[in-house]
Amino acid sequence: MLYKRNLQLNKHGELIHLLSTEGLPRGIITQVLDTASNFVSVSDREVKKVPLLRGKSVFNLFFENSTRTRTTFDIAAKRLSADVINLDIAKSSASKGESLLDTIANLSAMAADIFVVRHGASGAPYLIAQHVAAHVHVINAGDGRHAHPTQGLLDMYTIRHFKRDFANLTVAIVGDVLHSRVARSDIHALTTLGCAEVRVVGPKTLVPADIAQMGVRVCHTLEEGIRGCDVIIMLRLQNERMSGALLPSSQEFFKSFGLTPEKLHWAKPDAIVMHPGPINRGVEIDSAVVDGQQSVILPQVTFGIAVRMAVMSIVAGNGS
Amino acid sequence: MLYKRNLQLNKHGELIHLLSTEGLPRGIITQVLDTASNFVSVSDREVKKVPLLRGKSVFNLFFENSTRTRTTFDIAAKRLSADVINLDIAKSSASKGESLLDTIANLSAMAADIFVVRHGASGAPYLIAQHVAAHVHVINAGDGRHAHPTQGLLDMYTIRHFKRDFANLTVAIVGDVLHSRVARSDIHALTTLGCAEVRVVGPKTLVPADIAQMGVRVCHTLEEGIRGCDVIIMLRLQNERMSGALLPSSQEFFKSFGLTPEKLHWAKPDAIVMHPGPINRGVEIDSAVVDGQQSVILPQVTFGIAVRMAVMSIVAGNGS
Amino acid sequence: MLYKRNLQLNKHGELIHLLSTEGLPRGIITQVLDTASNFVSVSDREVKKVPLLRGKSVFNLFFENSTRTRTTFDIAAKRLSADVINLDIAKSSASKGESLLDTIANLSAMAADIFVVRHGASGAPYLIAQHVAAHVHVINAGDGRHAHPTQGLLDMYTIRHFKRDFANLTVAIVGDVLHSRVARSDIHALTTLGCAEVRVVGPKTLVPADIAQMGVRVCHTLEEGIRGCDVIIMLRLQNERMSGALLPSSQEFFKSFGLTPEKLHWAKPDAIVMHPGPINRGVEIDSAVVDGQQSVILPQVTFGIAVRMAVMSIVAGNGS
Repeated sequence: MLYKRNLQLNKHGELIHLLSTEGLPRGIITQVLDTASNFVSVSDREVKKVPLLRGKSVFNLFFENSTRTRTTFDIAAKRLSADVINLDIAKSSASKGESLLDTIANLSAMAADIFVVRHGASGAPYLIAQHVAAHVHVINAGDGRHAHPTQGLLDMYTIRHFKRDFANLTVAIVGDVLHSRVARSDIHALTTLGCAEVRVVGPKTLVPADIAQMGVRVCHTLEEGIRGCDVIIMLRLQNERMSGALLPSSQEFFKSFGLTPEKLHWAKPDAIVMHPGPINRGVEIDSAVVDGQQSVILPQVTFGIAVRMAVMSIVAGNGS
Repeated sequence: MLYKRNLQLNKHGELIHLLSTEGLPRGIITQVLDTASNFVSVSDREVKKVPLLRGKSVFNLFFENSTRTRTTFDIAAKRLSADVINLDIAKSSASKGESLLDTIANLSAMAADIFVVRHGASGAPYLIAQHVAAHVHVINAGDGRHAHPTQGLLDMYTIRHFKRDFANLTVAIVGDVLHSRVARSDIHALTTLGCAEVRVVGPKTLVPADIAQMGVRVCHTLEEGIRGCDVIIMLRLQNERMSGALLPSSQEFFKSFGLTPEKLHWAKPDAIVMHPGPINRGVEIDSAVVDGQQSVILPQVTFGIAVRMAVMSIVAGNGS
Repeated sequence: MLYKRNLQLNKHGELIHLLSTEGLPRGIITQVLDTASNFVSVSDREVKKVPLLRGKSVFNLFFENSTRTRTTFDIAAKRLSADVINLDIAKSSASKGESLLDTIANLSAMAADIFVVRHGASGAPYLIAQHVAAHVHVINAGDGRHAHPTQGLLDMYTIRHFKRDFANLTVAIVGDVLHSRVARSDIHALTTLGCAEVRVVGPKTLVPADIAQMGVRVCHTLEEGIRGCDVIIMLRLQNERMSGALLPSSQEFFKSFGLTPEKLHWAKPDAIVMHPGPINRGVEIDSAVVDGQQSVILPQVTFGIAVRMAVMSIVAGNGS
């Protein structure tokens, strides 16, 4: 996928857009995580701001609704002292029949610096990155089933924070892998960082047939999937995306793949449990696990701000 | 209500959350009003900003829609130099089935400093205050029929501004008391500040049967209610909350309890007229009174910004 | 229209509100354009901010939805370091039955400095300007079919930028003139700036019968309209505003009045093509023209930020 890698990097190999963790060199991922670790402390300070993006304009372009993800980018940009423009695209000129690229060209002409893009169509942020002016940087905040790279990077930050080294880790990704852009972004990043074993765990209807090609081990029982694991990433059961044919019921799913305190014993005693949120308690994960000692779900949220600050400050510093 | 008082104050008796004027010590109310008086002048200055909350994150969490109240908190936070995140909760993860407390836990993990909460359910801000991290402060911006403490405090500020001392005042609260969180917050604050007499005025269907227990005098005619009063607080007739059974018609209501220039003569000649807005001209109050010399409705709005600045700066300065 | 001119200017002849380009003296228009040219460079700088409106509150009051125009004012105000409050009026107290003037009085009492008003009713910004407190400035961001003065001024900026002098120019305004507030604002400004010839071009059903009284030449064929022109301003075909009776079909319209590369040859070889956006490609204008060498549509957007910064900084500096 040389093409995609080139689009994200300039000729010096520096990050100018973040579109996918696929094709992102290990050095760039490490740069993001190292930069983020400096920003984690910013959120603990009395004055939670650094002037790195002062006078820059960050446009949140959410073609698909996501208050949660938009809020994390909003906070991250404001803590970098940027001006943030939140565009509710459903209400905008798009509804007057203007094309995506005309909307983007117009916003570029307003001297935008960063576009944060959430779009229902896989690949939309690529299309945008190919057409923006040279001074504009694009960050993918989730496109269709394709990628959610800042979630992937904050997951890597979380794993590194709690487990230090990827070389000896076994990581299980459990649940609705089929519809999950998070799973894809995690797998690419884990592979690049040299994770010893990545397992993909779920019923056959929710695991893509060709996923083994990504270098993962496919498991169709939870016990096989998480036994001896260091890290368990539970995926949200995307009720709204599934047709009834894929799953008998959410109760059935919980019985087979829902993570309970008892089943968690299959993993290593110091295994950590992650979830990208929002959580369906009692559907893919039991409340006792969410609130238990091995859960690092809330630290993920905290690290997510720092990782987004890192990505924005890095791309803004690199010319095309 | 010792329990509720403790939740608002830390062990040093300092304000850490503002949930209700009930149980708020007189010293705290006076501290808010005194602090607000310093902020009134800020809005008159060329540069209407002070750096007290620079680098702090204020989240406006409006589970119930209120552009008006949200705007006043937005302005107050920006004049304190805070970063403001406006969350339209109806659109957020809440609609994906996430629980209130999971939403709050997530936002806390983003290093929020202050949550401003408007919620349709009485008590929701208490539930939130019980569960937030130690560094987070909660301000109730209206919960069900229960309380609207910043409105109560801005009403106290307005009365003190125009009448100086509460000890000899007679204050009438007129209209739809049954559905009014403003009435409750005003009564608690007036009682704590030593107001000589508080009257509650309205038809039997719109005055709760047990309200006399709050130490107020109940009057079922406007003449009895406002005769000799120093302060008249007119309540909005909440058409949207009433079933037809409570009231024959708004015209009937206006005939009996609507404040006209003629009826205003029953009060003291220097009585002031207040209203929390938005006003229904010709329903609970005549236009000539709204725009007349005794009306202090617009000063209430101005003081409201200063009072909200005061509350935010005070709670942000106090550790749990 | 002495009345309207007086409302926009104080007794020293300085701009205090921008309501229309009609009645705006040539000296004021020139002041806006000259000031804007200083701000164009601000958007090119590393830190795209100047502190001219620091601590001022700009309220975007959009009674009619327009993400595009609202965004340009939002960016312009933030680049002047103002605090921006975006009010979604459809959701606000207006929907609780509060009158326009009560809403305005309330917002004024919050110590607003500038109201940016978009309203579906022609004249609404005038009504507001007549009633605001002395310290508040009103900028019309489009009212009904009446006026869109900042669009008019940014069009003048664009023409001056590319053509220098208005004295020898022929400018054609093409399309749905009947429903266009942009056309009206352009005609007034062009006339005041001494433009040699202004042509209005469109089918009889979309050109007001009395428009020749404004000093323009009316043309009912595109060839007559743009032959020998220096500047062509294409108007958006406002599908949403037209009843079927006015136009057989958009295809018919394009055949007669749509601007194609071939038809563009009728104009001078160095003619520029403008459009206020959003563009309907293939309806009023061919894609090849939009993206062609003579198109200055994106520079218009860039200049629009600078012109709005100019208008806000000028009115904020002038007392009533």
